[in-house]
Amino acid sequence: MSFLSLIAAAAVAAAPAPGEIVATSPSADWVAVSPDDLVVMDLAPDAAGKARRVVIQLLPDPFSQGWVGNVRTLATARWWDGTSVYRVQDNWVAQWGDADGEIAGKAKPLPQGLLSVPEKAYVLRTEGPEQSASHEELDAWLATIQGTHAAWHALTHTKLAIKDADPYADETFFYRGWPLGASRAGPTAWPLHCYGTVGVARNSSPDTGTGAELYAVIGHAPRQLDRNIAVVGRVIEGIQFLSSLPRAQASDGVYETPEQRTPIVSVRIGTAVPDLPRYEFLSTESSTFHHYAEASANRRDPFFIKPAGGIDICNVKVPVRQAK
Amino acid sequence: MSFLSLIAAAAVAAAPAPGEIVATSPSADWVAVSPDDLVVMDLAPDAAGKARRVVIQLLPDPFSQGWVGNVRTLATARWWDGTSVYRVQDNWVAQWGDADGEIAGKAKPLPQGLLSVPEKAYVLRTEGPEQSASHEELDAWLATIQGTHAAWHALTHTKLAIKDADPYADETFFYRGWPLGASRAGPTAWPLHCYGTVGVARNSSPDTGTGAELYAVIGHAPRQLDRNIAVVGRVIEGIQFLSSLPRAQASDGVYETPEQRTPIVSVRIGTAVPDLPRYEFLSTESSTFHHYAEASANRRDPFFIKPAGGIDICNVKVPVRQAK
Repeated sequence: MSFLSLIAAAAVAAAPAPGEIVATSPSADWVAVSPDDLVVMDLAPDAAGKARRVVIQLLPDPFSQGWVGNVRTLATARWWDGTSVYRVQDNWVAQWGDADGEIAGKAKPLPQGLLSVPEKAYVLRTEGPEQSASHEELDAWLATIQGTHAAWHALTHTKLAIKDADPYADETFFYRGWPLGASRAGPTAWPLHCYGTVGVARNSSPDTGTGAELYAVIGHAPRQLDRNIAVVGRVIEGIQFLSSLPRAQASDGVYETPEQRTPIVSVRIGTAVPDLPRYEFLSTESSTFHHYAEASANRRDPFFIKPAGGIDICNVKVPVRQAK
Repeated sequence: MSFLSLIAAAAVAAAPAPGEIVATSPSADWVAVSPDDLVVMDLAPDAAGKARRVVIQLLPDPFSQGWVGNVRTLATARWWDGTSVYRVQDNWVAQWGDADGEIAGKAKPLPQGLLSVPEKAYVLRTEGPEQSASHEELDAWLATIQGTHAAWHALTHTKLAIKDADPYADETFFYRGWPLGASRAGPTAWPLHCYGTVGVARNSSPDTGTGAELYAVIGHAPRQLDRNIAVVGRVIEGIQFLSSLPRAQASDGVYETPEQRTPIVSVRIGTAVPDLPRYEFLSTESSTFHHYAEASANRRDPFFIKPAGGIDICNVKVPVRQAK
């Protein structure tokens, strides 16, 4: 082994872990989350009296905004106060809202002003006739809705050798901090169901749900729900208070008795929570994020002996932290 | 719309859900699991006095058999009795064994006869010089170690239009009921980290772990661990008793105090558990499984409005049930 290759080997051995890359990032690479885009759910304290706060970031425009608006309306009306987490299904979801919502005469009345959003809003599609776009046309269209895709595309397909093969979408990419999928048919783009994703429970089609019944993913990404249910946000803090709840016995995950439910004390928009920390996420357009994503796909930090050479987009977890 | 297309539409609307396909499968499509290939872990009862049993199926030959043998030795010696689940990290793993194993003078002595297994055993590779196989050569090699691959390959690549793109492996397939990956480089094949997978915790390379410290995946599939850690089995019953445990505060998921740990009453090989039900899994070579996998990738049952057209292999959950 030559001296130069020894240096190269040492450089590889000293490669930072993804978390180390994030920890040493410049503050300019972080994007502040507006408290207006946060929903704060305080569950009843646990058996030891410990507080359980779940903080949810809402999905940005132009995705799912009809349902996101409904969630804002419901939180502003404090509609969820006194409701519960009534469904916890292993490797699937924790779901909350009005446990009696389906029982005539017992359902809690919804606030005024909720929109009924059509199914076509599960995805983003431009006006005009549907078409089957080429890969190049899809890229060109995605570039019109955001600026991240081009950089992510370069990262995944060329320079840094991340294999981003995805069985559920023709393309996956990040948009303003969020994982998305896209299809040449349409073309369309849509938010993904990853761990921690918050979506809108619904009844059979054509119902699309109001947003009053929400769930958070607490298992392996159920990507088959993409384009079938509205995604409205993601849990950025406190997911463990949902994921560690006792599982229901029933196959649909709904608790058998009211006593098994976890009471919700309050759900508020972030601006209504005086003690809320400020949050920020790592810009998915930053060079730090690209370095982080590449290192996540090709782990060369000391514990690893075989870098994967690829990563699925739900494992490229967008870093979120409390601002200092 | 013509009459014939109306019939077709009705047929599509009546398509069974994956679970319905499994429920109506012929009994000949199920494979009995030998109690000798099961490890039964009884945790201390929960706060309400309810039993918590976790049943683990061991990985079959020719994968990870050095570590699997060690797990048999440890369970036969009842080495885990009195140890604990001492690490629970959200969206990652629950880990058990000797919480003091790293503390000199406090570690519980291991039984005689444990093998030290080399890193090369993380994957299966035939003897002879490494080569870079073509897709066809990889297929031919995989066909020599099992009979399922050809059928799965046909399912994914041709007849039934399942897109099985995988960012972590050149090929994914099922082998005697287990999800595997394969690479043209080598060529090699290896077991996957999916939800519920049980693996062998280890220290830094070249340590590969004995099998005394085990973990179960309780979050999104950490596929970056494939080929870096030994997989020895999967939880087939009771995963909820691990996945619903309180998360540790520390970033590495290890509980701060002994009181937070969950005691392990006993860990036994299935043959030593008189009241153990018989288990069986759906043969991944059966036509029922292929129908189930196709329906999982292309959900046409009533709830769904947009079939994905693809699925990642960790979401093709191999059905396991108690035999009647």
